[in-house]
Amino acid sequence: ETAAVDVDRLRRCGFTEVVYCEGKSVGSVVEIFKSLSGHGQHCLGTRVSTEQATALTEYFPEIIYNKTARTVRLPRTNQAGTPVERVGKVSLLTAGTSDLPVAEEARETLFWMDCEVDLIVDIGVAGPHRLQEQVHRLQDSDAVIVVAGMEGALPSVVGGYVDCPVIAVPTSVGYGTSFGGVTALLGMLNSCASNVTVVNIDAGFKGGYVAGLITHRIAKARKG
Amino acid sequence: ETAAVDVDRLRRCGFTEVVYCEGKSVGSVVEIFKSLSGHGQHCLGTRVSTEQATALTEYFPEIIYNKTARTVRLPRTNQAGTPVERVGKVSLLTAGTSDLPVAEEARETLFWMDCEVDLIVDIGVAGPHRLQEQVHRLQDSDAVIVVAGMEGALPSVVGGYVDCPVIAVPTSVGYGTSFGGVTALLGMLNSCASNVTVVNIDAGFKGGYVAGLITHRIAKARKG
Amino acid sequence: ETAAVDVDRLRRCGFTEVVYCEGKSVGSVVEIFKSLSGHGQHCLGTRVSTEQATALTEYFPEIIYNKTARTVRLPRTNQAGTPVERVGKVSLLTAGTSDLPVAEEARETLFWMDCEVDLIVDIGVAGPHRLQEQVHRLQDSDAVIVVAGMEGALPSVVGGYVDCPVIAVPTSVGYGTSFGGVTALLGMLNSCASNVTVVNIDAGFKGGYVAGLITHRIAKARKG
Amino acid sequence: ETAAVDVDRLRRCGFTEVVYCEGKSVGSVVEIFKSLSGHGQHCLGTRVSTEQATALTEYFPEIIYNKTARTVRLPRTNQAGTPVERVGKVSLLTAGTSDLPVAEEARETLFWMDCEVDLIVDIGVAGPHRLQEQVHRLQDSDAVIVVAGMEGALPSVVGGYVDCPVIAVPTSVGYGTSFGGVTALLGMLNSCASNVTVVNIDAGFKGGYVAGLITHRIAKARKG
Amino acid sequence: ETAAVDVDRLRRCGFTEVVYCEGKSVGSVVEIFKSLSGHGQHCLGTRVSTEQATALTEYFPEIIYNKTARTVRLPRTNQAGTPVERVGKVSLLTAGTSDLPVAEEARETLFWMDCEVDLIVDIGVAGPHRLQEQVHRLQDSDAVIVVAGMEGALPSVVGGYVDCPVIAVPTSVGYGTSFGGVTALLGMLNSCASNVTVVNIDAGFKGGYVAGLITHRIAKARKG
Amino acid sequence: ETAAVDVDRLRRCGFTEVVYCEGKSVGSVVEIFKSLSGHGQHCLGTRVSTEQATALTEYFPEIIYNKTARTVRLPRTNQAGTPVERVGKVSLLTAGTSDLPVAEEARETLFWMDCEVDLIVDIGVAGPHRLQEQVHRLQDSDAVIVVAGMEGALPSVVGGYVDCPVIAVPTSVGYGTSFGGVTALLGMLNSCASNVTVVNIDAGFKGGYVAGLITHRIAKARKG
Amino acid sequence: ETAAVDVDRLRRCGFTEVVYCEGKSVGSVVEIFKSLSGHGQHCLGTRVSTEQATALTEYFPEIIYNKTARTVRLPRTNQAGTPVERVGKVSLLTAGTSDLPVAEEARETLFWMDCEVDLIVDIGVAGPHRLQEQVHRLQDSDAVIVVAGMEGALPSVVGGYVDCPVIAVPTSVGYGTSFGGVTALLGMLNSCASNVTVVNIDAGFKGGYVAGLITHRIAKARKG
Amino acid sequence: ETAAVDVDRLRRCGFTEVVYCEGKSVGSVVEIFKSLSGHGQHCLGTRVSTEQATALTEYFPEIIYNKTARTVRLPRTNQAGTPVERVGKVSLLTAGTSDLPVAEEARETLFWMDCEVDLIVDIGVAGPHRLQEQVHRLQDSDAVIVVAGMEGALPSVVGGYVDCPVIAVPTSVGYGTSFGGVTALLGMLNSCASNVTVVNIDAGFKGGYVAGLITHRIAKARKG
Ligand SMILES: Nc1ncnc2c1ncn2[C@@H]1O[C@H](COP(=O)(O)O)[C@@H](O)[C@H]1O
Ligand SMILES: Nc1ncnc2c1ncn2[C@@H]1O[C@H](COP(=O)(O)O)[C@@H](O)[C@H]1O
Ligand SMILES: Nc1ncnc2c1ncn2[C@@H]1O[C@H](COP(=O)(O)O)[C@@H](O)[C@H]1O
Ligand SMILES: Nc1ncnc2c1ncn2[C@@H]1O[C@H](COP(=O)(O)O)[C@@H](O)[C@H]1O
Ligand SMILES: [Mg+2]
Ligand SMILES: [Mg+2]
Ligand SMILES: [Mg+2]
Ligand SMILES: [Mg+2]
Ligand SMILES: [Mg+2]
Ligand SMILES: [Mg+2]
Ligand SMILES: [Mg+2]
Ligand SMILES: [Mg+2]
Repeated sequence: ETAAVDVDRLRRCGFTEVVYCEGKSVGSVVEIFKSLSGHGQHCLGTRVSTEQATALTEYFPEIIYNKTARTVRLPRTNQAGTPVERVGKVSLLTAGTSDLPVAEEARETLFWMDCEVDLIVDIGVAGPHRLQEQVHRLQDSDAVIVVAGMEGALPSVVGGYVDCPVIAVPTSVGYGTSFGGVTALLGMLNSCASNVTVVNIDAGFKGGYVAGLITHRIAKARKG
Repeated sequence: ETAAVDVDRLRRCGFTEVVYCEGKSVGSVVEIFKSLSGHGQHCLGTRVSTEQATALTEYFPEIIYNKTARTVRLPRTNQAGTPVERVGKVSLLTAGTSDLPVAEEARETLFWMDCEVDLIVDIGVAGPHRLQEQVHRLQDSDAVIVVAGMEGALPSVVGGYVDCPVIAVPTSVGYGTSFGGVTALLGMLNSCASNVTVVNIDAGFKGGYVAGLITHRIAKARKG
Repeated sequence: ETAAVDVDRLRRCGFTEVVYCEGKSVGSVVEIFKSLSGHGQHCLGTRVSTEQATALTEYFPEIIYNKTARTVRLPRTNQAGTPVERVGKVSLLTAGTSDLPVAEEARETLFWMDCEVDLIVDIGVAGPHRLQEQVHRLQDSDAVIVVAGMEGALPSVVGGYVDCPVIAVPTSVGYGTSFGGVTALLGMLNSCASNVTVVNIDAGFKGGYVAGLITHRIAKARKG
Repeated sequence: ETAAVDVDRLRRCGFTEVVYCEGKSVGSVVEIFKSLSGHGQHCLGTRVSTEQATALTEYFPEIIYNKTARTVRLPRTNQAGTPVERVGKVSLLTAGTSDLPVAEEARETLFWMDCEVDLIVDIGVAGPHRLQEQVHRLQDSDAVIVVAGMEGALPSVVGGYVDCPVIAVPTSVGYGTSFGGVTALLGMLNSCASNVTVVNIDAGFKGGYVAGLITHRIAKARKG
Repeated sequence: ETAAVDVDRLRRCGFTEVVYCEGKSVGSVVEIFKSLSGHGQHCLGTRVSTEQATALTEYFPEIIYNKTARTVRLPRTNQAGTPVERVGKVSLLTAGTSDLPVAEEARETLFWMDCEVDLIVDIGVAGPHRLQEQVHRLQDSDAVIVVAGMEGALPSVVGGYVDCPVIAVPTSVGYGTSFGGVTALLGMLNSCASNVTVVNIDAGFKGGYVAGLITHRIAKARKG
Repeated sequence: ETAAVDVDRLRRCGFTEVVYCEGKSVGSVVEIFKSLSGHGQHCLGTRVSTEQATALTEYFPEIIYNKTARTVRLPRTNQAGTPVERVGKVSLLTAGTSDLPVAEEARETLFWMDCEVDLIVDIGVAGPHRLQEQVHRLQDSDAVIVVAGMEGALPSVVGGYVDCPVIAVPTSVGYGTSFGGVTALLGMLNSCASNVTVVNIDAGFKGGYVAGLITHRIAKARKG
Repeated sequence: ETAAVDVDRLRRCGFTEVVYCEGKSVGSVVEIFKSLSGHGQHCLGTRVSTEQATALTEYFPEIIYNKTARTVRLPRTNQAGTPVERVGKVSLLTAGTSDLPVAEEARETLFWMDCEVDLIVDIGVAGPHRLQEQVHRLQDSDAVIVVAGMEGALPSVVGGYVDCPVIAVPTSVGYGTSFGGVTALLGMLNSCASNVTVVNIDAGFKGGYVAGLITHRIAKARKG
Repeated sequence: ETAAVDVDRLRRCGFTEVVYCEGKSVGSVVEIFKSLSGHGQHCLGTRVSTEQATALTEYFPEIIYNKTARTVRLPRTNQAGTPVERVGKVSLLTAGTSDLPVAEEARETLFWMDCEVDLIVDIGVAGPHRLQEQVHRLQDSDAVIVVAGMEGALPSVVGGYVDCPVIAVPTSVGYGTSFGGVTALLGMLNSCASNVTVVNIDAGFKGGYVAGLITHRIAKARKG
């Protein structure tokens, strides 16, 4: 036996343990998904290889595989069999086109958490009017996720326009001294905007997850 | 003239521009506080030196100076002159005793934002029963801030017990390969708990600010 | 001639020189194994490639090859031809499933040293009940090896539960700022638990070896 | 003898060798200034200590000492004894108030080169309207110097508004992972704006010098 | 839709947005080129893969693809259909033969900007007469670009011979502690020559772009 | 209240929680010592300042303060009031004279744990006969601690002579690229001797503690 | 034209310019060899690919290609057509078997320089008798080259036995925190032996070259 | 007792053990000098503090203390009581004036070794004629030492002019990304000149020592 799945996490943390598929054998991944869904848990897998996705799809034909995001998730349906309604609103921004795969991972995570997502791409700081034209779309967000590589400056600029948390996701997009995303990460950690927090490089999953938690708490508060 | 204060920030971001006092002359700091309060804004200063604090206290006798936190803030009163009521609840944890100054900076920031704070100190992972005994106090928090130096492991353990965002604040406590907080920061960025986000080393202010934003949005939603 | 095997090491250090196979030609590896076993020495090879393993198996059909661990070892039998009995007890823990190959290298090393091993997998800190349920199994260990990647927090938590040395083995499991295991290593070096020592990244062999030395000295002391 | 002054540099490079005073004895600095001015050269000294400045002022009473910039320079007069007219226009921007000493070093360098300078302070990206209000002042610049610490995002934003070279000067303003200016430097090197070049951390002198060279070449071309 | 092209950049910055093709799908790249040229803009693409180049050539048969430089550009013609005349003069130097691809990227960028380029290769500092023999060719340059790997010493030596800006482009040529160009970059940032500015590792595009801007401003001034 | 002392650690881990005094106020340190000794626990403090030591000595006149080691400890007496007998044997080696303070911290820790210590100083690898002359003294050790700065080569050489664990303690002795002990640490982590484990830079306490744990387990086994 | 070969180097530096073949096209390499040998120069090429070697062998059938060392060199004959006699003596040591390719590059360089080489392999510090048995072979050396990876401790130990320069060549042999040879390099730079100098990681060529220069100067002095 | 002086080193290595005084007590330093000179050995101490120098001067009134170099050495006289004659010739170059203290340490070491030294200061690469004017002085050197900070380019240029080993000594002169000498060190390790070897940052002693060894071997060979 090679895994000790944490089936109690849903109770403690509000959401099922998510399966980090990198470095796991195809067999292990399938076994873990069976174990989790056998406990009635709603599964999400990240960093899924094509091979793992194929094996999972065989066993769970309804599974939703996003090749760009490298995620799989089981659709959630309520007891009537209809899909669960989405709550709240998370804005998801990218600085460039190449940041899309990381943004997709965040989006899939938010869909798995039943959150509404508004994706706005390619509004990096060197063409500042592009963000300004979209600022109105950020106004009613519960949280904003900003995905950026290279110098990672976008979260600071976005942070200056909104009154909600900005979750900055550095990406490994760039070359030379971008150092695989370290430069973007450092820029974000040193943001002069007060509302910026940061997750690991290329960690779209984490960015989405924390935004989703915030949205759910607000939604719950709204319901009273 | 050496400053261009952003008096519009309250409108855009919900809170006044906070004054980072390090590297500013005493004169500049006083001038900026005058300018902000002259625009009817509620001031917070961080990384304040004793000298700066003394000068500010002369001009604003009511100012609240926290020497450990190295912060100053003007008390907020509502129109009736009574202090504003605190909203929500943020749990503020430290791994050790030496992390206190950073936690104090977070606490002052939250007080300035009119948030309720529950401080729990010295519950590092090598004595795990200490956290377990306090877990119940975390249950109804809007956000948990975890302040830790050395290996920075506490946020991961806390993350496994709660269903709200965990904002990890690495501190420069430690020696040798703690590298002035870099080790704690890296540990937090790589947390195996999904709900952990991170801010800069010793950035109690940022940890407090983001937790405060979350709390306010939830409080607002609760009010409907 | 490309090697100067240290056949005296058994006498000085208690165990035969172990062959680090990476970067050696298939021919060199076979030659070294022949030379060592010709001197009546009990061989262990680490970081063995499939090709090297095949060549060794041809020459030593009884050799034990563990593909996951990337190790080969010659079985040790006592004069009666039966396998040597195992001594002591080492607990071997992993934080996740992906840390298994490194744990396997430690386990093979301990088998080669004729030590008893108790393997417990996937008990990372974000699901803390998993470790708590296993703590009793650690109580009578001579040493505990903890294999972990990402933030490497598990050794600190384990260290708080046991009264024997904890040998922490950081792994290269993770992405972004895990920096190929550097983050886990740094976390372990800065552990707030006093009983944690550290070996190189992915150095299952070293972790196993030192644990084995401790176990043997205790076993010898027990015999009087 | 401890120096071999390059009195030919004016001929080759257009400007006299500038004296880097850090780590030189007071005696050496005075000797070098005498030697240069003895060859009829127009001296600039950077990173001057108070002690060095005092000694130089004794010998050269007309010397201009800027304590914030830590520079000294001899005033240049034309044959009629009136100060030389300033040419061109360099815009000099800072992200924050604490970046001023570095900006002052750039400004003194430009004055020494007889260039016109337009200084605009404290227009960091978290309050983006502050830059937008000043953009018109940048329109006719020969070059823009942007001095910024922390995440160093301002040059990218400025770069998107102008059609001249942007010379980015990272400063050591910040804490924690600002790493004494390394984060700002890396951000600037990875700018998504095409017109940004970079100099060493806190190198106000270099930023000013290169901007001055550009301005002079344009001025010369204008004259035809 | 995966891109928000900045068609206004020509107006603000003097040149069209350049397409960074790395990490973009073939489809995206073609779409972006169509969109830009549809707005009457003159396109340059950098870091182009063979596959992307092939697709672009199908759609734009007149496109100029430089395989060594990994660039594509549309030829610019004036209204009479003849190619636009080149302005100014940029000297482009390399320390070694292996630095050529980066120099080619700079050259293509300068051609796209309609600038005159004088390329001088393989004049590294260990054979110093090679540079000395070419110094006369640098005398009337508007800017000098120096492309160098390994220790990156050439810009300092060149800087001592000219009175114009030297734009240093570090390359990833080297091994061991050249750290993929970091050593060359650091050497250039710490140049003892005052006129050296620096761009990212292997950033031939940026080096060329800034040199081109300088040349154009001088040319414009010359025209009066 | 600023501390939550772990009075249960003695039961779980065999020894009382050790007080890391750096960054704690004099008041906090005294309070923690009172609390621990009030629970009948045997106290050790590390990284003690002169001021803290003075305050502790006032309250606990019998306390043993080692100024070089920067430690304080309460003497342990058995019920008859005589000092407890020392067990086992740990060899404690230093490469140079400047490594002594770190060795002293290890020695004090071992005294606090009631272990026998054999200290051998200044036997660095460039004068190899010095170690060879002492090798016989290492033969019957339970563990060997090697304290070394600069290139940290001594543990590898010692490792080749003994059959017990070698606990390597890197020190910050050195200059330039010794990087405050990082070079020694890296050397030790990459030791070609199989029996070397490593602790943090200057962590004499940790080296001593783990050696003490090993010695005690062997002593206990000996007793049966 | 892509190269400016330094045919004057033989006169200035005593030996022909050596061709660094990495990153050069097959065509360029052949062209450079033709140009050099056309000027009557004795060629050495390093970091040669199989493809480059094949092309060179076609043109220069007498060329000596060492596949392990990745070098090519033209044999040197004196006017009588017999090979030139070897001078002096360089000892060439490796710590392990995997360091051989780097040692081979040094050996080929020394052969090209007509120096006598004594190669001793696999005498790393964990089996210290191996070096002791060979110390007599080092006594009459002009210089000793020590090639080592991992912790790079061998040069320090060798340095303590000899009275000639020790040229340490760090190799990229190792894993985890060996960081591709950086750890070995740092260890060598911080050697406590006074006679150790260092070259770049895997720079067998440079180690050999400097040892060869020393040997030649001594040989020349011997001749008077 | 805190030291185990290596009095046999003179026999093995040709020169007495040199005393690294940093981090040693005044008492230890005096004791070590007494012990060495008591064994008839010729002492050199490096990194000596003023306090240590004063104590040593009291005991050894003839000692030669160089405050800039931070060295002490006992004068060597031959049996007739006259100073020993100097042998060979080492050229000692500095790039700037601030590199002098490191050069002085090298010079003192060479004097202690009875070597002739030719010091040439302040000939950095940005004023290249300064080196060219002195090249003739390097022609008959046994070895050249080049001391340089900032970008450390001088050794590469010098290397291209001479046919003897160039020993490069990086200094901590510089600011920002000079990183206390790391940039100069890296530049020197990656020198495109084949004859450059490197020692630790600010290691004037090591540079001098190795140059002295080379000079002595050549002198000995000359004598036959
Ligand atoms: N993409 C991801 N990045 C970071 N953590 C993740 C990711 N996907 C899953 N996880 C976390 O990794 C843990 C599982 O690790 P493991 O036991 O190795 O499968 C879970 O606690 C998840 O919260
Ligand atoms: N080779 C290059 N290096 C750095 N920046 C570039 C390069 N090529 C294009 N760019 C810039 O990258 C930006 C486009 O990024 P993206 O939106 O991801 O296409 C533009 O603003 C260009 O100025
Ligand atoms: N010198 C030291 N180095 C590392 N850890 C220490 C040291 N001294 C005490 N500790 C550990 O630090 C922890 C106490 O941290 P704190 O709560 O901040 O006092 C205890 O668990 C000790 O095991
Ligand atoms: N393996 C090597 N390592 C370092 N430098 C080398 C090597 N081989 C040749 N060189 C040097 O590299 C320079 C040639 O660079 P290039 O002009 O790119 O061929 C020559 O000056 C040689 O001294
Ligand atoms: Mg874009
Ligand atoms: Mg504590
Ligand atoms: Mg798991
Ligand atoms: Mg401001
Ligand atoms: Mg060349
Ligand atoms: Mg010593
Ligand atoms: Mg070997
Ligand atoms: Mg100078």
